[in-house]
Amino acid sequence: MKNYKPKIRLTTQAYIDGILNGDRVILSRAITIIESNLESDKILAKEIVQEILPSSGKSIRIGITGVPGVGKSTFIEVFGLHLVKEGHRVAILSIDPSSQRSKGSILGDKTRMEELANIQEAYIRPSASGDTLGGVANKTGETMLLCEAAGYDVILIETVGVGQSETAVHGMTDFFLLLMLAGAGDELQGIKKGIMEMADMVVINKADGDNIRMSEMARLQYQNALHIFPESESGWSPVVTTASAIKNIGISNVWDEVLKFKKLVDENGYFLKNRNHQQIKWMYNNINEELKQLFYGSTSIKSQLSKLEKDIVAIKISPVKAAQKIIEAFKKSL
Amino acid sequence: MKNYKPKIRLTTQAYIDGILNGDRVILSRAITIIESNLESDKILAKEIVQEILPSSGKSIRIGITGVPGVGKSTFIEVFGLHLVKEGHRVAILSIDPSSQRSKGSILGDKTRMEELANIQEAYIRPSASGDTLGGVANKTGETMLLCEAAGYDVILIETVGVGQSETAVHGMTDFFLLLMLAGAGDELQGIKKGIMEMADMVVINKADGDNIRMSEMARLQYQNALHIFPESESGWSPVVTTASAIKNIGISNVWDEVLKFKKLVDENGYFLKNRNHQQIKWMYNNINEELKQLFYGSTSIKSQLSKLEKDIVAIKISPVKAAQKIIEAFKKSL
Repeated sequence: MKNYKPKIRLTTQAYIDGILNGDRVILSRAITIIESNLESDKILAKEIVQEILPSSGKSIRIGITGVPGVGKSTFIEVFGLHLVKEGHRVAILSIDPSSQRSKGSILGDKTRMEELANIQEAYIRPSASGDTLGGVANKTGETMLLCEAAGYDVILIETVGVGQSETAVHGMTDFFLLLMLAGAGDELQGIKKGIMEMADMVVINKADGDNIRMSEMARLQYQNALHIFPESESGWSPVVTTASAIKNIGISNVWDEVLKFKKLVDENGYFLKNRNHQQIKWMYNNINEELKQLFYGSTSIKSQLSKLEKDIVAIKISPVKAAQKIIEAFKKSL
Repeated sequence: MKNYKPKIRLTTQAYIDGILNGDRVILSRAITIIESNLESDKILAKEIVQEILPSSGKSIRIGITGVPGVGKSTFIEVFGLHLVKEGHRVAILSIDPSSQRSKGSILGDKTRMEELANIQEAYIRPSASGDTLGGVANKTGETMLLCEAAGYDVILIETVGVGQSETAVHGMTDFFLLLMLAGAGDELQGIKKGIMEMADMVVINKADGDNIRMSEMARLQYQNALHIFPESESGWSPVVTTASAIKNIGISNVWDEVLKFKKLVDENGYFLKNRNHQQIKWMYNNINEELKQLFYGSTSIKSQLSKLEKDIVAIKISPVKAAQKIIEAFKKSL
């Protein structure tokens, strides 16, 4: 993308008005600004986010994860269409820190969600690219705020399960959905324990035809497995169901469970508490990344670090003293 | 410990000479300086470490972990005595970030290693206390250097398995030993997958009497389980054995495996490569902690953060902008 030239920008107000009016073209252009690494765009992006902030947040945010092959795209397509039929406006985002290096986010291939991609009530945006998960998560988080301000009241954030991306998605959503398949052997194989613990709901997908009985067995196994985890702070007990996205079986049930969850956490106060906690954590994540950037981004620090690494290996200086020395140099350079 | 008064300090040279002469009393006093939080002691500690540095490193460092009840103290006692009999001098340290808050490190109770505690060739030091794992690990790491300079050629670092302490111990040792018990049910229960992956050796302890057959079964199960992990960079395939510390069965075998490992990694260059990598990582861990301290330690930052948290919850400012704002303020304050 070396020949990329930024488009002519609108005024800040034009972006804000466009977003608040639900103008999809302007929303897309504003998201492009959020994803841009140009300094001028970064300033513009912050202004836009700040102005639409009071109109954001009025959605239910659902994180969706599952191993490749579980049928995530089909599930999101069918689930999204169901939500639209129920009168909702749905935005579909994803976090995929690998999208730049590998062949791209699953959502990059919009044709996988052909029907959903062509209706006004749904908005699909592929993952932002970026070098760090933190950077990508920031962009997705701000994109989410813009989508909410544009009137999308259900946000689906998909993760491809690379590295810590599930944790990032969990950290910015209200409800976390894990898609799984009935397997022949150990039902829990292939899924990290930490992910199971995050799930508010597990859906055994592809529960159709010959697979129905095995899926039902898997459902029972997962339901039992979830009992070993301590109760969630939300007061919600994770549910396990079966579904077949391709046959449109069990999809409305998923949404019913989301609504039950929402009712519970609205009533017990967890919804707001968790949102506030997430927002504050978001700030701290940014601060910690910025602090590192402030230090490691300095050319002088870089060359000193490289020398200190050599001195450590040559046993000329202890690691603790080396750290102290460079921190002193850093302080003086400020 | 409010009434604690520092003892009169020796000269830096007196500490250095004492350590290099293997004087246990001076070694202990020097470690106390490393563990001290007084600013003057911190300076003195850095000087001592810097001066003994060329005499450090000449040991094999063994990390030992296992769940409570696995018989760690007895194992270390018997293993340590075996090493002494083989002509080694053994230092036994531990990392336990919880020692301040809970009832103290397992090594705090030296009576559990009665025999080992009373011979010249072994040196036992309970875990340093501290608020952060990083701080505790630093102190243990520097203590290790001092023990090496004092002539201890085998360092055992025990962890109680609290939080990330295994990772810290693994990051400062050459060989990582996991103690386990044969259980009635799922043999892998209760142990985090990440820990298994770190192990260079798994010892099924308490393999005596009626427990022998079950321990042998457990050994096979673990050996099979370890095959699912990708090969270690060291080129070493983790071994699983049974032992009974209390009956002194299989203990010499553990040391034989350590020696085999040492021979392999000396020959293939991994030993030195890993040591260098660990030392450099130690510096970076310190830098990152110092950076956070620089920021979060500021009273002005603290009060601003508390206000920003309120503004975020009141939707007056976006988390990303809040982070940016406080980082700007921080930069100006420097």
